[in-house]
Amino acid sequence: MIGRLNHVAIAVPDLAAASAQYADTLGAKVGAPQDEPDHGVTVVFIELPNTKIELLYPLGDDSPINGFLEKNPAGGIHHICYEVEDILAARDKLKDSGARVLGSGEPKIGAHGKPVLFLHPKDFNGTLVELEQI
Amino acid sequence: MIGRLNHVAIAVPDLAAASAQYADTLGAKVGAPQDEPDHGVTVVFIELPNTKIELLYPLGDDSPINGFLEKNPAGGIHHICYEVEDILAARDKLKDSGARVLGSGEPKIGAHGKPVLFLHPKDFNGTLVELEQI
Repeated sequence: MIGRLNHVAIAVPDLAAASAQYADTLGAKVGAPQDEPDHGVTVVFIELPNTKIELLYPLGDDSPINGFLEKNPAGGIHHICYEVEDILAARDKLKDSGARVLGSGEPKIGAHGKPVLFLHPKDFNGTLVELEQI
Repeated sequence: MIGRLNHVAIAVPDLAAASAQYADTLGAKVGAPQDEPDHGVTVVFIELPNTKIELLYPLGDDSPINGFLEKNPAGGIHHICYEVEDILAARDKLKDSGARVLGSGEPKIGAHGKPVLFLHPKDFNGTLVELEQI
C-alpha cells in the first residue's frame, strides 16, 4: 500500500540557522521559506536525490509546531510521510486494522497541494505518520 | 556534501508487531530480523521504492536502544542516515563548523558494512544524524 517516503519533517527552533546548516555545512540543496498559513507552519524544503527533508517552523499562535517545540526546544523529527495511491482506501484499511486517523478522518489538502491524513503516533511505534495521495 | 537519505531508523518496543504492521497493514516489503551484535540491535529493513525504514530493537543489556525505549515506551524515530562519498572529509568539515561527532570521532563499520559516524543531536535540530560512506 505505501509507496515512496515523500519526506521527513523536522521541527526547528531557528529556521534561518537550520537552513544555513543544511546548505553550508551539509552542502544540500535548500529552498526558500514558504508560509503555509492553512497549516500554521513556515516550511523550507531540502531536496535530496531520493526524497525531501521538510524543516518546519511555527507560523502563528495556533501552530501545531508550538507544542512540539515547547517539549523539544532543540527541535526534533516531527513526522514522516509515506505516499499512497488512494488515500481513502488506505484510510479505510487502516481504520479496519484499529489504527486511529487524526482529526475528522477526512483528508485535507497538504503543503504540496495533495490530499493528506495523519495517523496517531501511538498506533505506529511512537511515530507521527502522514499519508499523502500522489 | 550529503547525498541520498539512506534510511530512517525507528526504535520499536515489539519487533514482531511492528514488522507485521508494516507488512500487513501498510503493505510494505519487510525483511527478516537480523541480529547486529556489534551494534546491540536487532534490525528489520523495510524496503520502500526510494529508501529504507530500519526498525530497531534492543539486543543485549548494553543496547543503545534500551535508554531510548525507556524514555519513549511506545517507540519513536531514533535517527536518520545521510549518505556521503568521503566520510573523513565530511567529518572534518563538520568538526570545523563546530558540530560534535559522537564517540571516538573515528568511523565504525555500520549495519550495512560501510563506515559510519553519528553526529550530536543538539547540533542538528534535536535530530540524531548518521553519516554513511557509500
